[in-house]
Amino acid sequence: MEFTVGQIAEVLRGAVEGDANQQINRLAKIEEAQAGSLSFLANLKYEPHLYTTGASAVIVSRNLELRHPVQTALIRVDDPYSSFTTLLEFYQQATRTGRRGVEEPSFLGANSTIGQNHYRGAFSYIGENCQIGDDVVIFPHVFIGDRCKIGNGTILYAGAKIYAETVIGERCTIHAGAVVGSDGFGFAPQPDGSYRTIPQIGNVVLEDNVSIGANATIDCATMGSTIIREGAKIDNLVQIAHNVEIGRHTVVASQSGISGSTKIGDFCVLAGQVGLAGHLTLANRTTVTAQSGVGKSIKEEGQFLQGAPAFNLRDSLRANAIFRHLPELERRLTQLERRTNPPEKS
Amino acid sequence: MEFTVGQIAEVLRGAVEGDANQQINRLAKIEEAQAGSLSFLANLKYEPHLYTTGASAVIVSRNLELRHPVQTALIRVDDPYSSFTTLLEFYQQATRTGRRGVEEPSFLGANSTIGQNHYRGAFSYIGENCQIGDDVVIFPHVFIGDRCKIGNGTILYAGAKIYAETVIGERCTIHAGAVVGSDGFGFAPQPDGSYRTIPQIGNVVLEDNVSIGANATIDCATMGSTIIREGAKIDNLVQIAHNVEIGRHTVVASQSGISGSTKIGDFCVLAGQVGLAGHLTLANRTTVTAQSGVGKSIKEEGQFLQGAPAFNLRDSLRANAIFRHLPELERRLTQLERRTNPPEKS
Amino acid sequence: MEFTVGQIAEVLRGAVEGDANQQINRLAKIEEAQAGSLSFLANLKYEPHLYTTGASAVIVSRNLELRHPVQTALIRVDDPYSSFTTLLEFYQQATRTGRRGVEEPSFLGANSTIGQNHYRGAFSYIGENCQIGDDVVIFPHVFIGDRCKIGNGTILYAGAKIYAETVIGERCTIHAGAVVGSDGFGFAPQPDGSYRTIPQIGNVVLEDNVSIGANATIDCATMGSTIIREGAKIDNLVQIAHNVEIGRHTVVASQSGISGSTKIGDFCVLAGQVGLAGHLTLANRTTVTAQSGVGKSIKEEGQFLQGAPAFNLRDSLRANAIFRHLPELERRLTQLERRTNPPEKS
Repeated sequence: MEFTVGQIAEVLRGAVEGDANQQINRLAKIEEAQAGSLSFLANLKYEPHLYTTGASAVIVSRNLELRHPVQTALIRVDDPYSSFTTLLEFYQQATRTGRRGVEEPSFLGANSTIGQNHYRGAFSYIGENCQIGDDVVIFPHVFIGDRCKIGNGTILYAGAKIYAETVIGERCTIHAGAVVGSDGFGFAPQPDGSYRTIPQIGNVVLEDNVSIGANATIDCATMGSTIIREGAKIDNLVQIAHNVEIGRHTVVASQSGISGSTKIGDFCVLAGQVGLAGHLTLANRTTVTAQSGVGKSIKEEGQFLQGAPAFNLRDSLRANAIFRHLPELERRLTQLERRTNPPEKS
Repeated sequence: MEFTVGQIAEVLRGAVEGDANQQINRLAKIEEAQAGSLSFLANLKYEPHLYTTGASAVIVSRNLELRHPVQTALIRVDDPYSSFTTLLEFYQQATRTGRRGVEEPSFLGANSTIGQNHYRGAFSYIGENCQIGDDVVIFPHVFIGDRCKIGNGTILYAGAKIYAETVIGERCTIHAGAVVGSDGFGFAPQPDGSYRTIPQIGNVVLEDNVSIGANATIDCATMGSTIIREGAKIDNLVQIAHNVEIGRHTVVASQSGISGSTKIGDFCVLAGQVGLAGHLTLANRTTVTAQSGVGKSIKEEGQFLQGAPAFNLRDSLRANAIFRHLPELERRLTQLERRTNPPEKS
Repeated sequence: MEFTVGQIAEVLRGAVEGDANQQINRLAKIEEAQAGSLSFLANLKYEPHLYTTGASAVIVSRNLELRHPVQTALIRVDDPYSSFTTLLEFYQQATRTGRRGVEEPSFLGANSTIGQNHYRGAFSYIGENCQIGDDVVIFPHVFIGDRCKIGNGTILYAGAKIYAETVIGERCTIHAGAVVGSDGFGFAPQPDGSYRTIPQIGNVVLEDNVSIGANATIDCATMGSTIIREGAKIDNLVQIAHNVEIGRHTVVASQSGISGSTKIGDFCVLAGQVGLAGHLTLANRTTVTAQSGVGKSIKEEGQFLQGAPAFNLRDSLRANAIFRHLPELERRLTQLERRTNPPEKS
């Protein structure tokens, strides 16, 4: 895929300085860019790279005053970062998510409908009685069980597995290997110590603009729904148990796990490898640092938590600082004991 | 799927009070139920909801004495909880696991046999020389390698991957994306610091009534077998390394990891995100709390462990309680030092 | 698959003592071996088993002097361990990875090429403009996106998912369900608290002899490449974020997670469930113990780290030893306070 500097400038409504006929075939960081690359300069901290970059063209602000001569062509725009992000989105769509049409063999169950302008990859499977919107992208090996609903513009990458009766909103992204709607981990102990499986007949609801990472797992509710609300972003290998609710625009980083029936508020951030016990409530704007374990509900908004078990971040940092010096603390204590209570002379 | 209250009562051998002709199309919790729902009342703590529920019918005990009038129909049975679970199982089978027949294209390798009354979804793959029992449910995209044995009534959800020579018992459930039989992580260090792969030629054996969660991974033995014994329940994203043995009716919650050659006893419980070192033995009925790390064998039965490294739960709780106050402890110590050894006057 | 003791000895250029006509149909540990098994004795600690083993034959050193009579046949070779590993490799190839040819239906996109002597399983998918080498083994349900390059002798197990533009070297092993090239977790916060997805247009590069475990996830770079260097071994369920670099012959054990842009040196070892923060650099030969969390760069080579947050292993062990006795420490301190500052008499 190649464009000239002039063509790109036209799309961005920018003005070219330098050779508008150069061919661009990739996007790159200004400090790593080579011939054929287009880059951008938004943060002026990186301005020195402008005079040494190997990029064929750089997107810069209309107002930027050059302090040295440049080798690269410039495309001057109002907001370089936003213009570059627009190009990134265009590039990603052109190279990864823009495919349309149906590859065979693929499977579409009875009474299922799918909207206009979609892609269904080879070996993709859609069960019965599904309702799937427009512009939906279904990569190869995707499994969609019976009676699912999927909104417009949602992308399901290779091998994503959606159990029956799942509801997915618009413009969601489900990455490869993610499992949505697997059975909750519910077993009733029997008198002999064995377990009877409690059937899980609920479902999962993902609202609009939700992102689910590769190989993440989201269990269906025992009854009712496990819910991921609008705009929430779930990273790779995250576990979300049955009947959990994740609030709007909440971010859960990789390998975190949330136990059954816990409700997380809006605008929260869980860093990587965090664990939450079951049946908790986390207030809006709660932040939990990496590897922490939360065992109690958090009622006040905007708290920062750390540790396992987690408590207030500032107190946790202080306690950890002393933890490292415990051997010294113990020595000081022993010394004090000797001084105040000397051993009897023999 | 709709049934009348009367039809359901007949199945449960219950007696109807109220309108037996109402249509039921879903099961719900008594406090969330709406028209068309069937619910149940087992724990009398929830009795107040009986008089306000929106459910069309509620399953109650034959002995329950009403303290107020009810809007809902009642189905009176001997044991409401057990009756409701029976309905849940029936519902799950009807909606998810009851499918039978073969969807095409699917792949069945040479010399493989499969019993009666099974389901093989589109794009499912069965290798050569496999022996698969009756009533087995194989969802789309399931992979079963050569020379596997799978017992009657086992369910493999979409995209489960079973390596060659795996042995799976009866009535097991393998959730979507789970991998059973991948190579153990065995590499022999070479003089130059690189590694030579140690071929892993053993297999995995799952006994009867084992459940494996979505995207969990169970490695084959280097030689011999990795074994998950009868009734054990393994949650999503759990890692079980080569040559591990998991005892009967042991439960391993999500994201826990068990290192190579460790043997876990019967009736144990590992909570979420637990890590076990390799070559350990855990006695029967050991319980390990969430995020703990166990580095030593546990010989006495019935222990509760916590922490990383893990020790006795009670001691761990006490140590954690003081950990939070380490800064205060340090201040007290400093104060004491000053008091008993005042700085010399200048 | 059966061979006689004599046939195996011929392959290994060994000398038989005992019945060379016995049939061998499996490999086993010397202490577990039964009739029909071939075993080996390399570590003399296990020599007593030689006189009691049920194996039909045992590979031993040419120099071994028997101290008792043996029931088993012997195959004498120069290096028993190496000879046995050769047999293991042969066995694994014969039973698992030696398949060749194409099973249908499988999908090969336009302009993609694939070398000689390969296997493409049923329902495998190769996108457009891919270049795939000789002797490549592609199991069923593997997904390979557009414009990927895969070197000679690489094995992709069932359901491995390779996003577009990934580059994989020679003799790599990608286990079942692993995802290589999923989008990095990059979202730009907006003024209203929601997030705009930052398109991830980079790729993943795996050099030669890299191994990726089952259901592991490796994100593509935002721009540029996420790189796993020659000989690195990545275990099951590991998370590697965007723009990470893993050095040559570095080992990352199961369920560890490495955050964005972190660079790990050569010959490092991360044990299980380790977490690394983003934008760090770890020097060569760094070792991190299980469940540790590393938040700072490590500049000196050869360090051993432990804890969360991690520091020097020796200091961490000492601090942990005292942590367990914190309640006792607190008691000693309280006692000292009382002794040096007795409560006033009333």
